[in-house]
Amino acid sequence: MAMSSNRFDPDFTKNVIEAIGPACPPRSRFVLSKMIEHIHDFAREVELTADEWMAGVKFINTCGQISDAKRNETHRISDIIGLESLVDEIANKHLSETGEAPTSSTILGPFWSPNAPFRENGSSIIESPHQGQVSLMHGRVIDLDTKKPIANAVVDIWEASSNGKYDFQDPENQVDNNLRGKFRTNDNGEYHFYCLKPTAYSLPTDGPAGVLLRLFDRSPWRPAHIHLMITHEGYKPVITQIYPKEDPHLVDDSVFAVKPDLVVDFKPRKDDPKAELDLEYNVFLAPKAHKGETSQTTSTQANL
Amino acid sequence: MAMSSNRFDPDFTKNVIEAIGPACPPRSRFVLSKMIEHIHDFAREVELTADEWMAGVKFINTCGQISDAKRNETHRISDIIGLESLVDEIANKHLSETGEAPTSSTILGPFWSPNAPFRENGSSIIESPHQGQVSLMHGRVIDLDTKKPIANAVVDIWEASSNGKYDFQDPENQVDNNLRGKFRTNDNGEYHFYCLKPTAYSLPTDGPAGVLLRLFDRSPWRPAHIHLMITHEGYKPVITQIYPKEDPHLVDDSVFAVKPDLVVDFKPRKDDPKAELDLEYNVFLAPKAHKGETSQTTSTQANL
Repeated sequence: MAMSSNRFDPDFTKNVIEAIGPACPPRSRFVLSKMIEHIHDFAREVELTADEWMAGVKFINTCGQISDAKRNETHRISDIIGLESLVDEIANKHLSETGEAPTSSTILGPFWSPNAPFRENGSSIIESPHQGQVSLMHGRVIDLDTKKPIANAVVDIWEASSNGKYDFQDPENQVDNNLRGKFRTNDNGEYHFYCLKPTAYSLPTDGPAGVLLRLFDRSPWRPAHIHLMITHEGYKPVITQIYPKEDPHLVDDSVFAVKPDLVVDFKPRKDDPKAELDLEYNVFLAPKAHKGETSQTTSTQANL
Repeated sequence: MAMSSNRFDPDFTKNVIEAIGPACPPRSRFVLSKMIEHIHDFAREVELTADEWMAGVKFINTCGQISDAKRNETHRISDIIGLESLVDEIANKHLSETGEAPTSSTILGPFWSPNAPFRENGSSIIESPHQGQVSLMHGRVIDLDTKKPIANAVVDIWEASSNGKYDFQDPENQVDNNLRGKFRTNDNGEYHFYCLKPTAYSLPTDGPAGVLLRLFDRSPWRPAHIHLMITHEGYKPVITQIYPKEDPHLVDDSVFAVKPDLVVDFKPRKDDPKAELDLEYNVFLAPKAHKGETSQTTSTQANL
């Protein structure tokens, strides 16, 4: 705690925490007490002024006001300050401590859609015109323990188009579910589909995220990436992103979501009239009851 | 820092802070770096789950979405977690360390209006029907150093009606600026006007504040209070609230804004057909250039 904390009422934070009533569930009490402690310590350490506090209040209100079913600005602010990436690290640490590491996860981001259609292996997720390079993406989903293929796993993929926009940000140029799709692995654990080599884009800077990034004097750019969510009822799900190795924004991703093992190599593809590039990407999933552990969700359920 | 922090990447928070660019103003860099540190430490200490983080994101979005020109839910959430009261303590500590303490301040709350009309001393701020007790409130505004009266100080007062609602929450029953007014002190530093003995009320619980208070298992009630903002160009302003001594919610104020010296005694008033109660309340203001100090605002300007 900063030296200056001593100048203030030593009981105030304790009083606010002790006001929590007996019916507050234990996990909520713990999380909210720590939240109050950190917010109060922050205010005391920086000697937050009334003007600064009110600027923060207004900023938070603008995040909700610009958000809707297709835009989640508070999610985006979380990403800019590294919070989603940290929450992912915490969850992933729980997994990796139980044994060998499965495929690295990274942040979900605000562009996943629950409505992506199931498509057949070998088909394309490209439904609207674009300026990008078509790639065949293929690989296997593998059991981390047995190294055997996992049949019937779902590979959910979503990516921005060559203009850097997702379908629901760009209804004039893209049909719904352009560059989105779910694929099931076959008996050999294999999936394959046509997609675009991804394109780098800037976060939207017309709202609070732009205000904060300008104040931070930071770049709003993300490296090009493909989002993936790989699930199977017997395995812990993996949410991740993969990045072409030559992207210049790997080193200054505005949402701190790049990890070394998520950087991939798109290679030239020969003799395929449908694609000029080829990407092989294999995924390792940890069984849900990995080495005697029970499902993670029981111990980390949200009470908030 | 909690033991569990060690399990996570020790460089992650440093990397996020060091991404701040050279053009970020020094005060903003300091405040935002501490904010990032505390948010990250909080997440690591409670091992925040993805579900809990997303519940928080949604909660913050709902605060902005329910807020408008007449409702500021993020301000209210700040009050419920004690933040506005703490920010007030920090500012007040700066004042009191420069000499004798002026009248205690407390939180502004979300119901102040910039549009309150100037009224004549001796007039009433009551313009709409009510079930309350009319009181004459009177007193002097006094220089903390010289103990001499301050002429031409502005006493800005606002209070809820006997149904616990402020004018702009209650357009069906109250005209604009009912129970609001600004008064100037005379040459003897005196003000006097008719108002209502205040009525306790519950914070609105139909939005995120209600969600949080129910989760906290805490009362949404505030003790009855009158808001005051006392200003004069030569003095540091005081924003405060006063509370009738018999109010049962003095001990569990939902926004942690009660201080012992703000509790007042409404007495019976005789021989005044306009009022059944009498309240004397004197205010002490500290000169702006108090004991060689310059105006506080120069050193605490908001950069955010």
